[in-house]
Amino acid sequence: MANTYVFGHKSPDTDSITSSIVMANLEHELGNEEAISCRLGNLNKETEYVLNYFNVEAPKLIENLEDGSDVILVDHNSPAESIDNLENLNIKKVVDHHKIALETSYPLFYRAEAVGCTETVLFKLYEENDCFISKEIASLMLSAIISDTLLLKSPTTTDDDIRAVEELSKIAEIDYESYGLEMLKAGTDLSDFSIDEILNLDAKQIDFKDVKSIVNQVNTASIPDVLEMKDELEEGINKIIEKENLDIFILLITDIVNSNSEILVLGERADLVEKAYNVKLENNLALLEGVVSRKKQVVPIMTENA
Amino acid sequence: MANTYVFGHKSPDTDSITSSIVMANLEHELGNEEAISCRLGNLNKETEYVLNYFNVEAPKLIENLEDGSDVILVDHNSPAESIDNLENLNIKKVVDHHKIALETSYPLFYRAEAVGCTETVLFKLYEENDCFISKEIASLMLSAIISDTLLLKSPTTTDDDIRAVEELSKIAEIDYESYGLEMLKAGTDLSDFSIDEILNLDAKQIDFKDVKSIVNQVNTASIPDVLEMKDELEEGINKIIEKENLDIFILLITDIVNSNSEILVLGERADLVEKAYNVKLENNLALLEGVVSRKKQVVPIMTENA
Repeated sequence: MANTYVFGHKSPDTDSITSSIVMANLEHELGNEEAISCRLGNLNKETEYVLNYFNVEAPKLIENLEDGSDVILVDHNSPAESIDNLENLNIKKVVDHHKIALETSYPLFYRAEAVGCTETVLFKLYEENDCFISKEIASLMLSAIISDTLLLKSPTTTDDDIRAVEELSKIAEIDYESYGLEMLKAGTDLSDFSIDEILNLDAKQIDFKDVKSIVNQVNTASIPDVLEMKDELEEGINKIIEKENLDIFILLITDIVNSNSEILVLGERADLVEKAYNVKLENNLALLEGVVSRKKQVVPIMTENA
Repeated sequence: MANTYVFGHKSPDTDSITSSIVMANLEHELGNEEAISCRLGNLNKETEYVLNYFNVEAPKLIENLEDGSDVILVDHNSPAESIDNLENLNIKKVVDHHKIALETSYPLFYRAEAVGCTETVLFKLYEENDCFISKEIASLMLSAIISDTLLLKSPTTTDDDIRAVEELSKIAEIDYESYGLEMLKAGTDLSDFSIDEILNLDAKQIDFKDVKSIVNQVNTASIPDVLEMKDELEEGINKIIEKENLDIFILLITDIVNSNSEILVLGERADLVEKAYNVKLENNLALLEGVVSRKKQVVPIMTENA
């Protein structure tokens, strides 16, 4: 039997990495022994913390796959965020919690829900299929839900996420609040990164209608600390805008303690942000009160105003 | 609470009609009392037979909905096959078994599987949510699976469809083989229809890459009976080609007893069919041995060769 490669999006976050492990394990439980968890990029600090904490090996790094390979997409469905030759691969399944941006010429298993994290959907799949959730698998799921929902504080959080965190905490035997805060803080450590790396850590290419954009999100416990690098960040962003021919680049600097985001916006269509949020950019910056979710509080609002 | 309108595709077949009823019932079971089953077009003969047989009321016919209304799509996801203002509606859920052809700007519940019928997916949803399946609901599900899989003979049939038919036959207390054959035969009665109606009975607008197409399927117990109308059918097809500016129109005349299809093909790109199936059209006709499934044996092959 051929391998089935299971992977999340480029610039992987904790959800993409852990979901590839948890989904591959589910496939094993369901009898597909050839499922292999993979990743399309380097681990971020938060995910490193998680894998170290639970002593779990990172998924296999892949850059390309042979045309015709079987794949399972987790935590994304958009070809722009996936492996380059996706259109020549055989997508067997998708498990996700994002908007639909995939077109196929064949039917497939597609399971998405409007919940805070892919792992919450996977938790349901384990339950529905009566599959065993080990302590390790529970710990990984739990970490991703905490990460995506910023400890259940993000507006993307649903009752399903809360229920999953409660159940998984029991299986994992973890006090999720104290563990979660340490994990989130580990993710805000930018000291080892170059400016280019920071600008790619959690960057998503998103088109707001015809407006070509990248929205990058950086979590922090202190916005001023990040803004000490403002000049260098702007220089790096301008290079990306030129290279990718973008209309707009948004860097969302999210304060995980106070649940706000400062945005740094460059590009010819920076006016869209002003229109969408009724703010005035000053030195390319504006504070968006209560905005922590790119998916729920940035993408739809920008798309609507584009 | 606002209504949630549940509907299948235009030119509804038995799966689209029964799935709207069965999904609305599932929503009621899950606590959404405001779900209403609807339809976007007239019942076909087969579906009339089913609803009469089990004494079930047809879903409400709708032509348009107010912008912003909540909807659930069953048995389709492509905007081309849905209500006209779909892009201005709030899609809460999709339950389907077709390829993905929907783009959204927001996450939603999306459940599709590569099985023979939407009702097979719905059967799983009832099971997963521990919802009660009444005799009536089981009868409707069963009818749609028999219809879509041509009594489990179509290549779209999966183990899940077979299991669902076995379980549902028990609940419905129906000998599905004899009931199913009568139901399929009822669906082949074209005597009441005008040529225009026949050409719209199960017509799907499908683009094979850039090739603008309609593929219509008519089931019959006797291909020669249908071909007695060949001249009138060609006249009607040519009018549709002109009106819709199509590159190709394929009428699939499917023999449900012997599992073959005669195809009647018109349009400037009729050559695509010859290339895709390695056949020569004679008087616009060719016999495709063993071809009974538009979804599995026509759409992917035409798309690949376009």
